[in-house]
Amino acid sequence: MREFILLNLKARTSPDFSMGELPQAGRMDLVCRAVSNAFYTSKHLRTDTVFHACFNGPRNPPKIVSFYGNELRGMEPDEKSIGMIIRNALKKGIRMKMGDNSRVSDGLSISMKSFESLIKEKKELYYLHAKGEDIRNVSFGENPCFVLGDYIGLPRKTEGLLDRLGAKRISLGPVELFASHCPILVHNELDRQEFHNP
Amino acid sequence: MREFILLNLKARTSPDFSMGELPQAGRMDLVCRAVSNAFYTSKHLRTDTVFHACFNGPRNPPKIVSFYGNELRGMEPDEKSIGMIIRNALKKGIRMKMGDNSRVSDGLSISMKSFESLIKEKKELYYLHAKGEDIRNVSFGENPCFVLGDYIGLPRKTEGLLDRLGAKRISLGPVELFASHCPILVHNELDRQEFHNP
Repeated sequence: MREFILLNLKARTSPDFSMGELPQAGRMDLVCRAVSNAFYTSKHLRTDTVFHACFNGPRNPPKIVSFYGNELRGMEPDEKSIGMIIRNALKKGIRMKMGDNSRVSDGLSISMKSFESLIKEKKELYYLHAKGEDIRNVSFGENPCFVLGDYIGLPRKTEGLLDRLGAKRISLGPVELFASHCPILVHNELDRQEFHNP
Repeated sequence: MREFILLNLKARTSPDFSMGELPQAGRMDLVCRAVSNAFYTSKHLRTDTVFHACFNGPRNPPKIVSFYGNELRGMEPDEKSIGMIIRNALKKGIRMKMGDNSRVSDGLSISMKSFESLIKEKKELYYLHAKGEDIRNVSFGENPCFVLGDYIGLPRKTEGLLDRLGAKRISLGPVELFASHCPILVHNELDRQEFHNP
């Protein structure tokens, strides 16, 4: 399984935004593109992929919307479609208490939980970082979990936690990209490694 | 310079679509994501990049909207922002005759011209194809120009023309992706090659 965890510090945690103002909802447009890039190939959805979008913006933080590729049905790759899915999940999460978790629809759940609690559950963490080891030189295990910062980057404290959890810093190339671009490059490298070492 | 040419057979060539229905406008959402992926890094726009979006859909085909990274100003990476830029260009192109070309704004132009005429002008063509040579084994010249098919793929006749023009077929990896994903992988490989052979 391939897992992605995206931390968006300012993405809204309440469903009070329209599809015409995704950038204003704490760069929800970037989240939508990251989800799209994590799941779509030209022929099918990647069923081996899980994506957790962690939001810390107003008005009910923290929230995690999780997408499970093996169960997702009917998702389309455009920002508006994915934005509506996220807003529906946030609607379901309005009255949640810390620790609550709820299924929204096939392959989609929402929980009131922090990014920090989520990464503590993961065994094989990789943190995408400009100064990390080149991804092309890394051998991955069965269930790699990739942590992506949003356009603001990850807070120093969170980087410290990742270090303590043994997260390996990996780099995708010499130019720093948006978090939404990263799943494309990560999948490509894993696709190649699996193809050559099936 | 790095140049991309995307052919979208069904993308609308008239500006009669709203930002809420980009997928219904001949998958204009995919075009917007491709443009976004071709120009954005986390820090700046790629000034060394040109992107031509070729549309053959209704009601005034053919149209080519061209983005020049060295002159683009104020573009945002979300689908809606780029969709509005494209719609503005199509408005300017309403009364064009075959062969006309018009500047729309800084770094943006529209022309009434076929995809076939455009590719005939290019010297170093690469056609992204599942059965092509692995991009990681290709040495690129100064001005590579990458041809991307849309979700329908390229017509056989167009593939024949690309062959006659000496376009080299290159592959990005073992899994076929959306055309919108491809600029990310192409840029990454070129960034790496330039970094190692400056």
